[in-house]
Amino acid sequence: MIIDCHGHYTTAPKALENWRNQQIAAINNPSQMPRTSDLKIGDDELRETIEKNQLAKMHERGLDLTIFSPRASFMAHHIGDFQISSAWAAICNELCYRISQLFPDNFAGAAMLPQSPNVPIESCIPELEKCIGEYGFVGINLNPDPSGGHWTAPPLSDRYWYPLYEKMIEWNIPAMIHVSTSCNHCFHTTGAHYINADTTAFMQLLTSDLFKDFPDLKFVIPHGGGAAPYHWGRYRGLAQTLGKPLLQEHLLKNIFFDTCVYHQPGIDLLTKVIPIDNVLFASEMIGAVRGIDPETGFAFDDTKRYIEAANLSQADREKIYQGNARKVYPRLDELLKKQGR
Amino acid sequence: MIIDCHGHYTTAPKALENWRNQQIAAINNPSQMPRTSDLKIGDDELRETIEKNQLAKMHERGLDLTIFSPRASFMAHHIGDFQISSAWAAICNELCYRISQLFPDNFAGAAMLPQSPNVPIESCIPELEKCIGEYGFVGINLNPDPSGGHWTAPPLSDRYWYPLYEKMIEWNIPAMIHVSTSCNHCFHTTGAHYINADTTAFMQLLTSDLFKDFPDLKFVIPHGGGAAPYHWGRYRGLAQTLGKPLLQEHLLKNIFFDTCVYHQPGIDLLTKVIPIDNVLFASEMIGAVRGIDPETGFAFDDTKRYIEAANLSQADREKIYQGNARKVYPRLDELLKKQGR
Repeated sequence: MIIDCHGHYTTAPKALENWRNQQIAAINNPSQMPRTSDLKIGDDELRETIEKNQLAKMHERGLDLTIFSPRASFMAHHIGDFQISSAWAAICNELCYRISQLFPDNFAGAAMLPQSPNVPIESCIPELEKCIGEYGFVGINLNPDPSGGHWTAPPLSDRYWYPLYEKMIEWNIPAMIHVSTSCNHCFHTTGAHYINADTTAFMQLLTSDLFKDFPDLKFVIPHGGGAAPYHWGRYRGLAQTLGKPLLQEHLLKNIFFDTCVYHQPGIDLLTKVIPIDNVLFASEMIGAVRGIDPETGFAFDDTKRYIEAANLSQADREKIYQGNARKVYPRLDELLKKQGR
Repeated sequence: MIIDCHGHYTTAPKALENWRNQQIAAINNPSQMPRTSDLKIGDDELRETIEKNQLAKMHERGLDLTIFSPRASFMAHHIGDFQISSAWAAICNELCYRISQLFPDNFAGAAMLPQSPNVPIESCIPELEKCIGEYGFVGINLNPDPSGGHWTAPPLSDRYWYPLYEKMIEWNIPAMIHVSTSCNHCFHTTGAHYINADTTAFMQLLTSDLFKDFPDLKFVIPHGGGAAPYHWGRYRGLAQTLGKPLLQEHLLKNIFFDTCVYHQPGIDLLTKVIPIDNVLFASEMIGAVRGIDPETGFAFDDTKRYIEAANLSQADREKIYQGNARKVYPRLDELLKKQGR
């Protein structure tokens, strides 16, 4: 089977965005604050947004299951306070939960957290526990920059984050490191902020000894690891200068990269430079890059084509498609086994 | 001949750093402000710092000439105000000028600008004109984030920068886009901030129509273009979604990438994905990554080895080594021709 570890609910009914806009408008006018129960989206409506979009493409491309989380650019943790983020995260996660119930063979949930700048990370734990414990989600998305491009949070190695890491260990879940929309005019959201955040997170981890404190902590760095694999020599060299162990030892028991790299030479580099055990199949479909590549005639984000064409053994391809995801997301593996897969 | 388009004076005598530290200490105590004339570094001392370091390695590696600018991480435009940056830039540029005079066959200057956050960019023009007109420099380094990791300046496409671009056109010089040290604790300077800035600048240019206004403007994006070549499919796709022309047409008449990518697979990707006419040889030696790669037994930053081993025709290699640099830096070409090279 083929598991796509990186999909967002980018095709939600317009009612969701409308609710969010009302919520934002009410930040300075609390009497107008919409209630969670004001948002009404029926199962048929949900089903349709998935069947016509993600699921249609999954069938077309031969993908079996997507780890599905709320739309990343809509998380916008910089808007409002914790209460605002909390109500919004609960709504978005519940929709992903319902999708995972409507299509149990095709979607497993991953939670967005109700992060908010300058709020202790402990505040996110109840939502995490609900999503993992009650909803059966298999992972979370962790935003290393809830300020939305101003980078005011402590680095991921800081003790600020430790209570969350302890919960991740307790629940046996990984986090995908994923920022949201950029409200800094210097950074285009999907073209700069996402990729920079991946590179930044990688380097924050490289300079730290976080995994000595949390040997079982697991992070997926999306978008092919940002710039890290392309500059692997730089990172090996910097680690050496900093007196760190080889990256294999220092980071690669804990850090994994997805395959959201939208051309063949990028995937070739990724699968050549990074040990295959650290590469997880993903497409972020339907996401940032939606068009057809005029050079190939196929969708940019049809990453399975690149994996198929890469110089890989069948065993390695199998690891990328499902073996590694089952290891990094043990709760997904359990779920699949229960389903007889 | 082989031209390295990206070298900084990272080996300056300690007296330079001491002067800078005095200057910084005097920001809140102006009576202690050192004068430019307080800094005394003799020619022999300058010669020694170069002969034992950059020049020795250039000979060893077979590099002929380096485009040489002040140490990037020391520019620190976020410190103090324009007067502070101005005095500091003048000192640093003068040292590079003296090196270009002491070793005219081996070094040509590129200027750092006296940028300062929230100061009109026009303030940099006198230093630029001195460096190009009097010192015979062949280019400048332009910092897209003089705040040092807080990204408070307008994007490179903003009219804020236009007076500088007009001067670049008038003097027929390119700019290398190069940030300085990061004072944001989220970003490691050479491992995250440098690479992110390259990616950010590329995306700022992609989303704009700057080169319609300045068809002759030329930028070198260092460190192999940040993440751009690795994610070339993403950038082609985003440009398409944004209704921009193909990148070849939209950006590649104006944007060039250097070869500061410190392993073979990275250089292989760069030279495969980016048209050869847009790739300029560089090593940033002696720079961020100084060690010996245990996987090869050679210096990480000995990028000539990767170019030699890449699948390139001799004609293409020649373009990377000198032909492209002579086109992008026309004043360098003039200088070399005067020297009979």
